[in-house]
Amino acid sequence: MRAVVLGAESVTFTADYPAPIPAVGEVAVRVLCAGVCETDLQLVRGYMGFRGILGHEFVGVAESGPFRGRRVVGEINASCGTCELCRQGLANHCPSRSVLGILNRDGAFADVVCLPQTNLHPVPDEISTRSAVFTEPLAAAFQIPAQVPLRSGQKVVVLGDGRLGNLCAQVLAREGCSVTVVGKHARKLALLSQLGLATVPLESLSRERRADLVVDCTGSPTGLATALEIVRPRGTIVLKTTVAGPQTLSLAPVVIDEVTIVGSRCGPFPRALVALRERQIDVESLIDGVYPLEEATTALDRAHTEPVLKFLLAVDPSSPPP
Amino acid sequence: MRAVVLGAESVTFTADYPAPIPAVGEVAVRVLCAGVCETDLQLVRGYMGFRGILGHEFVGVAESGPFRGRRVVGEINASCGTCELCRQGLANHCPSRSVLGILNRDGAFADVVCLPQTNLHPVPDEISTRSAVFTEPLAAAFQIPAQVPLRSGQKVVVLGDGRLGNLCAQVLAREGCSVTVVGKHARKLALLSQLGLATVPLESLSRERRADLVVDCTGSPTGLATALEIVRPRGTIVLKTTVAGPQTLSLAPVVIDEVTIVGSRCGPFPRALVALRERQIDVESLIDGVYPLEEATTALDRAHTEPVLKFLLAVDPSSPPP
Repeated sequence: MRAVVLGAESVTFTADYPAPIPAVGEVAVRVLCAGVCETDLQLVRGYMGFRGILGHEFVGVAESGPFRGRRVVGEINASCGTCELCRQGLANHCPSRSVLGILNRDGAFADVVCLPQTNLHPVPDEISTRSAVFTEPLAAAFQIPAQVPLRSGQKVVVLGDGRLGNLCAQVLAREGCSVTVVGKHARKLALLSQLGLATVPLESLSRERRADLVVDCTGSPTGLATALEIVRPRGTIVLKTTVAGPQTLSLAPVVIDEVTIVGSRCGPFPRALVALRERQIDVESLIDGVYPLEEATTALDRAHTEPVLKFLLAVDPSSPPP
Repeated sequence: MRAVVLGAESVTFTADYPAPIPAVGEVAVRVLCAGVCETDLQLVRGYMGFRGILGHEFVGVAESGPFRGRRVVGEINASCGTCELCRQGLANHCPSRSVLGILNRDGAFADVVCLPQTNLHPVPDEISTRSAVFTEPLAAAFQIPAQVPLRSGQKVVVLGDGRLGNLCAQVLAREGCSVTVVGKHARKLALLSQLGLATVPLESLSRERRADLVVDCTGSPTGLATALEIVRPRGTIVLKTTVAGPQTLSLAPVVIDEVTIVGSRCGPFPRALVALRERQIDVESLIDGVYPLEEATTALDRAHTEPVLKFLLAVDPSSPPP
């Protein structure tokens, strides 16, 4: 089958990768469409030391199981189901888990991807394939209200005007927060303005400590330092993006101002699918281009070097995303 | 009056510092006894750039106001009372606050110290003066249950066998947690064992991610990194000690394991006084020596270079701590 493979040296497209054979409890999914994520770009730069097929945002058609023949999306953590954390309902943190296209499991930039049946969610007919690709990152945005108590009208600053920052800002505005997005890219900030969100260019950000909640979606080592400059005493900082490798910063303000820092990763797929079905969140305006799978390396290169929001890969040429 | 003063170059004892004049709303307190804290040692090394009389842990006799003639302890943050944070009940975070012996306010290593009347708490007769000196650090330990929901039996690791680690461990054990203290000093760990707490020398610490809650009382840049190695996914790390200056560490585990980090500073004096009156917490076993005020610089030097727990300064020679 066709696949986009991260090797020791580079990312390559190949037309003759062996098709995967689903393990017991797994389902093979014929991929229709996939999304390029910041994590993919970090993996290419060496994060996690991953080798294999990239890709963890996808929509496909299940080839077996209860959703056979239907469009599905898939949660990315494949857990053991029996360890202490799995039994506590923290399967996403199972220490022996594999993670789709990130850790010990081939991903979705390919004709076929395998996942446990229990990871799959059918896509309601009302949701287009190109919108459904956003289920995984949108679920990650909905993890914030799942972890942090929110008050209507509280002052939220989202740092980062990229894909995830955009989705987090939309989700938190919908939850009733007073949201301001801080970014570096005029075009991305303009898009957020069109969506009704307040925006501030990073260079104009006032360093007053007034934000109740700061969400760091920068993927940059400077994100947390900036967050500590603007969060109010007893406020909360949510870290949504990982920074590979060590970073240097002063944490004395965390103690002096009694700030809470919350790490936040994968989120609830069912909530994201409801939001997409009810059109509560706009995702299609984030799509900056659709590439055939054969041109995935071009998409990855451009996503790395250009300020794009979201590139999709149209994996199944017979069923392009509408 | 006599005072221990931090100048640009060094700490000096002087016998002729001008006696302070209480401002409106303030009370002069004749100091009986004071405690040397890790923060004092950090201030001497340049933390906060403080200049003036050191000392923020004290017991004294109020010279005016409703507690005139009675023994009192004092909260260390002197706030404006009118700003947004003060009105929200977050006076300890007032941006224009002074802090006793730490920020823009002369401290208690002196014959007389001034504080707002509202900062003072009378000391119940059942509490000895030498025990009451621990009210401030013990209140800081009680800030943990005030900030973090605790479950009976949950696994808590306290990093640091010093003054604050000892008090935090005792408080959390009393709250029903299963507490283990990790430290570097055989003598301090032995004292904790005598108090009924489990202890592990740092070099024997297993780096499994199993702790529900890790409390960093190390005052060391390595404390948070160690905490991240042993906290379970979705667990909590409380930072009790500040580290002056920038530190370098990888924060990716915070996101991947969805860890919550909570900065924690000053705590509730009334709760600490109840604990001392009811003898719920042992503090006297932490006292490693009592020095006259004239020998404060010796006490500071020894506290900096030797693994001592708590040195007291007997400020009023006519009323030595019993």
